[in-house]
Amino acid sequence: MGGEAEMVESQEWYMAAYAAEGVPTSDHLKLRTKTLSLAPDSIPDRHVAIQMLYISVDPYLRTRMSGLNDGLYFPQFEINQVITAFAIGRVVRSKDSKFTEGDVVISPFFPVAEYFVAPAETLIGKVDPADGISPPEYLSCLGVPGFAAWVGIEVLGDPKPGSNVFISAAAGGVGIFAGQLAKIRGCRVKLLKEEFGYDDAFNYNKETDFDAALTRYFPNGIDVYLDNVGGKMLEAVLNHVNHRARIPVCGMISQYNKPWTEREGVRNLLNMVGKDVRMEGFLVGTYLDRFGDFGIQMKNYIKEGKISSKHMIFNGIDSFLESLASLFSSSNHGKVIIQIRSE
Amino acid sequence: MGGEAEMVESQEWYMAAYAAEGVPTSDHLKLRTKTLSLAPDSIPDRHVAIQMLYISVDPYLRTRMSGLNDGLYFPQFEINQVITAFAIGRVVRSKDSKFTEGDVVISPFFPVAEYFVAPAETLIGKVDPADGISPPEYLSCLGVPGFAAWVGIEVLGDPKPGSNVFISAAAGGVGIFAGQLAKIRGCRVKLLKEEFGYDDAFNYNKETDFDAALTRYFPNGIDVYLDNVGGKMLEAVLNHVNHRARIPVCGMISQYNKPWTEREGVRNLLNMVGKDVRMEGFLVGTYLDRFGDFGIQMKNYIKEGKISSKHMIFNGIDSFLESLASLFSSSNHGKVIIQIRSE
Repeated sequence: MGGEAEMVESQEWYMAAYAAEGVPTSDHLKLRTKTLSLAPDSIPDRHVAIQMLYISVDPYLRTRMSGLNDGLYFPQFEINQVITAFAIGRVVRSKDSKFTEGDVVISPFFPVAEYFVAPAETLIGKVDPADGISPPEYLSCLGVPGFAAWVGIEVLGDPKPGSNVFISAAAGGVGIFAGQLAKIRGCRVKLLKEEFGYDDAFNYNKETDFDAALTRYFPNGIDVYLDNVGGKMLEAVLNHVNHRARIPVCGMISQYNKPWTEREGVRNLLNMVGKDVRMEGFLVGTYLDRFGDFGIQMKNYIKEGKISSKHMIFNGIDSFLESLASLFSSSNHGKVIIQIRSE
Repeated sequence: MGGEAEMVESQEWYMAAYAAEGVPTSDHLKLRTKTLSLAPDSIPDRHVAIQMLYISVDPYLRTRMSGLNDGLYFPQFEINQVITAFAIGRVVRSKDSKFTEGDVVISPFFPVAEYFVAPAETLIGKVDPADGISPPEYLSCLGVPGFAAWVGIEVLGDPKPGSNVFISAAAGGVGIFAGQLAKIRGCRVKLLKEEFGYDDAFNYNKETDFDAALTRYFPNGIDVYLDNVGGKMLEAVLNHVNHRARIPVCGMISQYNKPWTEREGVRNLLNMVGKDVRMEGFLVGTYLDRFGDFGIQMKNYIKEGKISSKHMIFNGIDSFLESLASLFSSSNHGKVIIQIRSE
């Protein structure tokens, strides 16, 4: 017990009401305080008590808050229940032989809370202080967005040297790493915002004439488009694809905040026939058998200085709503992380 | 010269005006008569004079008549020029050593005319009278629709035994063969029209509530959807796809007769992410390196009685407009072919 009292006050975010449309607000997500016992008798066997350190705020969380059980992504968060997220915490008490107090541990589904008790089997790894990689990097280039970028570029997009690669929502978590991975492959990369030394960029929230922008940025057409915007941006891209273009889709952030019947329809899918285009949606969870390969490759790139992360750090658990909203605004510059406490 | 006069009158269809919308009519396609010399001096070296026997009428022809040079499919037919189609003809004079008078020959791009002179290099094969396969079968199961079905099912869809396979526009050329190929693989096949002993069927022109129909026909969801309808049908299917479903798209017949900005937008592409769905458009021309494999496999299936064809035969070159219109109506029962003369 690193100085923790036997009883702690823990703030946690719970789902008060679903938000079918728009960015969720304090009408939908509310903060409450619970008192939690960290006494040894209160921790079940093969469980650990965790103090939250860093929370990864990712766009897919929005899809669990709509109340629309359309069978997509993960199930909806339950009303009155604490929500969960990919996160890093510190073990403050362990009833499991694989973990000791002080371990900094990772889980895809930690409660968005300051303290909690979790089954040890839900922890997917430890932060190794010796490898020189910071906890935020474990949530960015080595976390959900890094893995999504790796699946999108390395597994599905598979661009060749010299390919023209377009990455939407590039300022967000996934795009940053996808752009760098495509650069490592020798591609010509264009993305939404100028960051990290890429060739060029534009912003889907400001650039209204997508077609003119794509004509300007891709005079030779698009070979790989990693989509996480959808809607009108995807439609514009489909008018600029080259033969046998590939479109891995890891999300459609322009479309999350409305029911599907009110989303922007894509009218030119026929272009996929004329150009032999493959479009492929993916959830990172489907590719977990490749997570080990990904970690090895990505850690090497980090050590070689080929992959760098940019983080947009919010402070304190009460910043969750603000951090979530930032995913849907163009003020988002880098992987959104909430720091609860430093390690 | 099989009795042909030195000079013949030949009717041919030419593009008089493009049809941006709707089914092309006599405003757009017109018949004219040309006088053609079949005298030996009139035939260039390495050319053959052909008498047309059978013309394959396929939906992709519509995409060459819009006047919209959107870079898709093949180029637009030129105004005042004779249109072309996959067809079978008889050699009536040969100035090429590989062909002799009487040969029944196949080309993807014969002029839609009663007589014409063609470069020998454009002929892709001969009908072998010894193999027991009729000329219409060379245009159906061994022609454009058979090959499109084979690419869609065998190469891209790749359904497993027991998979739930949905085939739209099944009464058309492609669907007939795709359904039979999926049946051979042990799949549960549903298609638009009950034909050829399939499990079930419905008709996209009559069935207005696609969602209810798919719920009824696919209580366990859809694993492979071979799309050649697009629009609202594709949208409905995307609400019923299983995890890792595949959607090969060989056309979108519901969408051809309007400019892309007026086509039905598909609003639920986000489902492709949640279900890890792959959608892949294809042109058969892209897979010509597999045409030999296809022919061997398909001829075996035909000889084993596992593949049967249904033809909707129109008579005479003046039936071209009517035959084209039949592709877009639910009265289309089988591969549309125009018989100019019997062999």
